[in-house]
Amino acid sequence: MTAVGFIGIGTMGRDMALNLLAAGHRVRAYDVVEGAAESLRAHGAEVAASIAEATAGADLVVTMLPDTPQVEDVLLGAGGVRDNPPPGGVVIDMSTISPEATRRMHAALAAVGVALLDGPVSGGPIGAKNGTLSIMIGGEAAAFEKARPALEAMGKTIVRVGDSGAGQTAKLCNQVMVGLNLQAVCEALALGRAAGVDPVILREVMLGGSAASWMLDKLGTAMIAKDDQAGFRIDLMLKDLRLVGELAFSLGVPLPGTALVTSQYLDARGHGEGGKGNQALFRVYDRMTNQEP
Amino acid sequence: MTAVGFIGIGTMGRDMALNLLAAGHRVRAYDVVEGAAESLRAHGAEVAASIAEATAGADLVVTMLPDTPQVEDVLLGAGGVRDNPPPGGVVIDMSTISPEATRRMHAALAAVGVALLDGPVSGGPIGAKNGTLSIMIGGEAAAFEKARPALEAMGKTIVRVGDSGAGQTAKLCNQVMVGLNLQAVCEALALGRAAGVDPVILREVMLGGSAASWMLDKLGTAMIAKDDQAGFRIDLMLKDLRLVGELAFSLGVPLPGTALVTSQYLDARGHGEGGKGNQALFRVYDRMTNQEP
Amino acid sequence: MTAVGFIGIGTMGRDMALNLLAAGHRVRAYDVVEGAAESLRAHGAEVAASIAEATAGADLVVTMLPDTPQVEDVLLGAGGVRDNPPPGGVVIDMSTISPEATRRMHAALAAVGVALLDGPVSGGPIGAKNGTLSIMIGGEAAAFEKARPALEAMGKTIVRVGDSGAGQTAKLCNQVMVGLNLQAVCEALALGRAAGVDPVILREVMLGGSAASWMLDKLGTAMIAKDDQAGFRIDLMLKDLRLVGELAFSLGVPLPGTALVTSQYLDARGHGEGGKGNQALFRVYDRMTNQEP
Amino acid sequence: MTAVGFIGIGTMGRDMALNLLAAGHRVRAYDVVEGAAESLRAHGAEVAASIAEATAGADLVVTMLPDTPQVEDVLLGAGGVRDNPPPGGVVIDMSTISPEATRRMHAALAAVGVALLDGPVSGGPIGAKNGTLSIMIGGEAAAFEKARPALEAMGKTIVRVGDSGAGQTAKLCNQVMVGLNLQAVCEALALGRAAGVDPVILREVMLGGSAASWMLDKLGTAMIAKDDQAGFRIDLMLKDLRLVGELAFSLGVPLPGTALVTSQYLDARGHGEGGKGNQALFRVYDRMTNQEP
Repeated sequence: MTAVGFIGIGTMGRDMALNLLAAGHRVRAYDVVEGAAESLRAHGAEVAASIAEATAGADLVVTMLPDTPQVEDVLLGAGGVRDNPPPGGVVIDMSTISPEATRRMHAALAAVGVALLDGPVSGGPIGAKNGTLSIMIGGEAAAFEKARPALEAMGKTIVRVGDSGAGQTAKLCNQVMVGLNLQAVCEALALGRAAGVDPVILREVMLGGSAASWMLDKLGTAMIAKDDQAGFRIDLMLKDLRLVGELAFSLGVPLPGTALVTSQYLDARGHGEGGKGNQALFRVYDRMTNQEP
Repeated sequence: MTAVGFIGIGTMGRDMALNLLAAGHRVRAYDVVEGAAESLRAHGAEVAASIAEATAGADLVVTMLPDTPQVEDVLLGAGGVRDNPPPGGVVIDMSTISPEATRRMHAALAAVGVALLDGPVSGGPIGAKNGTLSIMIGGEAAAFEKARPALEAMGKTIVRVGDSGAGQTAKLCNQVMVGLNLQAVCEALALGRAAGVDPVILREVMLGGSAASWMLDKLGTAMIAKDDQAGFRIDLMLKDLRLVGELAFSLGVPLPGTALVTSQYLDARGHGEGGKGNQALFRVYDRMTNQEP
Repeated sequence: MTAVGFIGIGTMGRDMALNLLAAGHRVRAYDVVEGAAESLRAHGAEVAASIAEATAGADLVVTMLPDTPQVEDVLLGAGGVRDNPPPGGVVIDMSTISPEATRRMHAALAAVGVALLDGPVSGGPIGAKNGTLSIMIGGEAAAFEKARPALEAMGKTIVRVGDSGAGQTAKLCNQVMVGLNLQAVCEALALGRAAGVDPVILREVMLGGSAASWMLDKLGTAMIAKDDQAGFRIDLMLKDLRLVGELAFSLGVPLPGTALVTSQYLDARGHGEGGKGNQALFRVYDRMTNQEP
Repeated sequence: MTAVGFIGIGTMGRDMALNLLAAGHRVRAYDVVEGAAESLRAHGAEVAASIAEATAGADLVVTMLPDTPQVEDVLLGAGGVRDNPPPGGVVIDMSTISPEATRRMHAALAAVGVALLDGPVSGGPIGAKNGTLSIMIGGEAAAFEKARPALEAMGKTIVRVGDSGAGQTAKLCNQVMVGLNLQAVCEALALGRAAGVDPVILREVMLGGSAASWMLDKLGTAMIAKDDQAGFRIDLMLKDLRLVGELAFSLGVPLPGTALVTSQYLDARGHGEGGKGNQALFRVYDRMTNQEP
């Protein structure tokens, strides 16, 4: 049993905290949005009124937040985790943020005796709900071992990729694939549609061979049905693609495909689809082929 | 038991014929390259000295050839299948060729009472060997039912997509995904490498989440190990991408990602990698990031 | 004075024929569309009722047609130029067509003693009207010298690029630049607009430095004013881009930028803008940035 | 006669200061690199030992520096321009930097009574030498009028685009065109070369029509001759393309062509060509078509 302080009770965070509770861990939940943590109480969580309350007595602190500034604020801001270090001495940030900012915060927390792991996840809301996330760890091996029991309640593939920041880097590589694999589904379905092939059959037959991907499997049906309800949101993917672009630029790695995909996501957001699920990227192809709904 | 005349004993064709034999079908094999069919004799095949010999007495004729002109020659050329129709009245072309040429040949064979199915495959040499190909059928449902027992010896996912040409169209959609999914692996591995992440671990963790694909699974390891030996060849993929480009252009479907991928394949071929496996596409990224072997 | 048989009296051809007449050459005009040549009579042209009439007594035959099949039909078809060779022995095809088809027709006409030059033009309807076209010649130098006086009435930059087909090849290279230079104007104006910069001022200041181009100069104002009336049409550019794609593919030259531009043109055509001028490419950016008119 | 404090005596700055001197203006030059300003003394410039000396008595201060941080340091750092405001009350930053940082510095200097104009330039080292730069002004019209006589010594097209930051925004739009126009030349020359067309003739004939651009005119010859000596450097263009990317991302404008061009520039830099002139972008095509020198 791990005593977990869980900070950030959004779509993903909520399901992850529920899986911790279901596995028998203690969860003390905090969110800046008043009431967000409250709904977890019925499932056995304690609700913290502050970061200090969430970290008090914790073996492990988990953060699951939108972007780099929020993580910096929670970890290093006044009244934050640095000011209220958990007794267990381990924090894992499961948000997707800048690898370079991660390394800076890792150093800042090391100075007060806290090991910061980065542990961004892949698998989307479905994976969060089912506890089948892929978790990419950066940071000290010893801290990872302390965090492992809790992580096993939330994910299925849990791999320490390397030192601090390596988990975030792996996540950004992951998002490169996510974007291009989704682009692949868009182009294949657009071509098939124009040629008069039944998209449901097309998806099925493509899943059976070398074209198969998680994206075609999990989002293909929603794309065909024009069901754009949010799972993983266009806006959040664009945040990740911005981090990818910055990392690639700083390392001098040309990513022409990802750059193109980013343009298509910007097109989607420009048409008010930022709040929709990633499968709404197919709307860009509806427009390009003049097939608006 | 189906009596199959099998025309085209290349890398793929040979393994497909072996699976027919293993499932108890009769195979009479023919190839223009003298001796190509000979190696099947030890596995129980008969060897035909001409197309006429291969189709004589056949319930079903299978063709597995490089490109449109070869199929046109075998089906409609002098001394070809039209001149020597199989008694079973069904031919299935499992090559990847132009959907439009397929429809023309379908009409030409219908005139002599032969039903031409198109049945291109996905799954590459691995799928051919293991009998786990995905087979995409276009053509009459009744002819498909006659061919089905033989097809089941060669593939696992066997789907009639629609009328004549629909199988080829589905295959071209499939190749759109294959190309972009491979591009995805290239860009993700190139970014991870530049950032110092262990590519073996990166592949493993990406396979566990929403980045997963057949390409990452089946070709990722070879890409990391710079093992470029031919499975599915760069040259053949370029042939398919040319067919994709022509179809997309004629239908007016913009495929910007596929167009970019095609450029990368041309780059690979320009560097003498046309005869290597598709995973050699990663060499383009070796060059772009100045990491030549 | 050159006696010119002029075949193909469309938008471009009409103005080119007028310039020939204005320079004192004799023009006998023919077009399959009845009446198309008639309007030139008032300017001094004779009107031919057939190809045979147009070539009879001609020093030089000029063809100005939409695409490869039309040229093949006029030159090699029954009752065409091969059957009715002009006494001057020189034909110049000023259409934009396949370099490879050009070389084939060059050989076919050489067999009947006729020298076929290729002489596609750049400069659009404006250049045709003002006689300031750039003309790119492929074929024998001696035939070029015979054609030169007539060409000088139609163009300003008249260059023999090389042997048969070289003019068409140069034209396709020209269209690569045309497409990307237009893409450049689209992206620059879209960015400036989103950032709140006055596009009229932006165009002016960009024309003064290293961003200057014919496209920005000649089409920029129409793009800003959303004046999409046809000069050089989207449809015709797409025909040229198809020829570019085929040539690049056959030579193994990756043209990722041109491939992207081609996608944008297909998007434009898909939205019913095929008959509008090239500047309508900017509508693609109106849609991508949700600024539809 | 304007008394100008000129800060930043690099390749561009030196020639711009020389043109100010030649036009009869007073120049007091400063550069952090010791000795950089010294070479101007023989042409009539005074040499300042500090920013304070450069701004003392100045009607106008000009800054011409590599990137945003250097400008921030010179304008707002300790001992910088804010601490030593010029009596004339006008500063013009002619570097290419972030529009948003420009607006922040504009506000900071306004607080001490100094009007900051942004006035980035286009036309490269050639334009700097010949005094034919295009200068894109953002900021107050009254300040612009005070600066105009000095600007007229350095440029030919001098346009006030709008308020603070608008000059930088226009410059970034300009660089979008520069990048794509250069890409156009690369692709056209690569295609022509592969097809066996003489590139010198090709450039000449393309300059005569709708493909014409400053890039083809001014850099084409160097590209053909593989003369990569620095004019405007690859590294500096990449800095500008990073600013373009940030601006486009923040405004949500998809720039797929510019994103591709940026990849090609990263490829060039990755091959050690960062210090070469922009025409070295053609080396990317040498590599893609396996035509390394």
